[in-house]
Amino acid sequence: MSEAIKLFQYNTLGALMAGLYGGTLTVGELLEHGDLGLGTLDSIDGELIVLDGKAYQAKGSEGKVEVVEVAANEKVPYAAVVPHQAEVIFRQRFEMTDKELEERIESYYDGVNLFRSIKIKGHFKHMHVRMIPKSAPDTKFAEVATHQPEYEADNISGTIVGIWTPEMFHGVSVAGYHLHFISDDLSFGGHVMDFIIDNGIVEVGPVDQLDQRFPVQDRQYLFAKFNVDEMREDITKAE
Amino acid sequence: MSEAIKLFQYNTLGALMAGLYGGTLTVGELLEHGDLGLGTLDSIDGELIVLDGKAYQAKGSEGKVEVVEVAANEKVPYAAVVPHQAEVIFRQRFEMTDKELEERIESYYDGVNLFRSIKIKGHFKHMHVRMIPKSAPDTKFAEVATHQPEYEADNISGTIVGIWTPEMFHGVSVAGYHLHFISDDLSFGGHVMDFIIDNGIVEVGPVDQLDQRFPVQDRQYLFAKFNVDEMREDITKAE
Repeated sequence: MSEAIKLFQYNTLGALMAGLYGGTLTVGELLEHGDLGLGTLDSIDGELIVLDGKAYQAKGSEGKVEVVEVAANEKVPYAAVVPHQAEVIFRQRFEMTDKELEERIESYYDGVNLFRSIKIKGHFKHMHVRMIPKSAPDTKFAEVATHQPEYEADNISGTIVGIWTPEMFHGVSVAGYHLHFISDDLSFGGHVMDFIIDNGIVEVGPVDQLDQRFPVQDRQYLFAKFNVDEMREDITKAE
Repeated sequence: MSEAIKLFQYNTLGALMAGLYGGTLTVGELLEHGDLGLGTLDSIDGELIVLDGKAYQAKGSEGKVEVVEVAANEKVPYAAVVPHQAEVIFRQRFEMTDKELEERIESYYDGVNLFRSIKIKGHFKHMHVRMIPKSAPDTKFAEVATHQPEYEADNISGTIVGIWTPEMFHGVSVAGYHLHFISDDLSFGGHVMDFIIDNGIVEVGPVDQLDQRFPVQDRQYLFAKFNVDEMREDITKAE
């Protein structure tokens, strides 16, 4: 077997959902562990997109989407990255909805009990994203999620990046697809809600191990009281 | 901060519960990742105890407990080990039940959102353990668990080793305490059900990261269908 591929997850989606929004890991450190992935920024200020080893922030302001590169010293409260290596590559030659494409992707999996990295570079007839709005700590994510601005774009070229999580890890991460989008011209991006792809190249990468980190020096994390059942439901609702 | 301490978990308790009992990791490899921990053996043949860098198997046969050292080439389907470093050490000077001692241990935690390693060396007025009986693959663990032989010993010296898991990771591991016992004279051991301690030294170790491995080359694991809700319930019942 070639070198083991580690999914690096900083903090858990569950902790984020519970309102722990303060950034505690620098983007510079994050990028040492992978070149593809996603997350959010300090104060959940928009969506983090990691593509080809660079980190971008997509955020909405006054009805417009803005995408900027993120400096190495900015901090994230939650992120997941992987040194992406395509194991299966296929060309999507005709129009499909996100659900159809996701089913096609899953048909190439060896079972459903390992994490996977996902990269879809192509042209999209339609792309529908949402953006977490910068929020005060302790506001529950499920609360925040009910009024997240959504944005749509037609006929746009770009890349979807993300992680597919086995159901057993729901709570730690979100079961199934967690995908973010960034357009080629850096004018549009966010957390993917749904889309229609015209055509593109889909890469599915293997994940052999989970390297799960915790904000061990964040006392707010250490002493947070999580209602785990509620947390799992919130993730299902919000993601 | 000193070097990060990683909990190495091979496979998940959930997968074990679902009946994947075939060993796929050698004990030699396991011991490279930690000197304290627990697990089970190929065909869930008894209980694995890792203490001071050595691996032992406790199993019941014809109403008697047998404890033997495990050879480096034997294989395990599930195990969790950590390079244990005591962070909090306390002397338990008077008699306590397991529940009372567990509460005392938790009073020393910095919050409940990190894993921890546990080591309790002492003299026990009473020790009640159970042993998984060697089982055919695919027999559900919850099924196996209903007829696990139990054993009791009085006035016995030995060590409890184990892991404490945050609730968010229930399913991946078992929330709360997962403890195995081994007597000083290697005559008794198993999966801890309950006990009364006379006196002893309790060590609680920090865990900064989870290094989660999967049996990536085990096709049975890859294609297993898990009912995750049922799995979480089974773990609660069985552990």
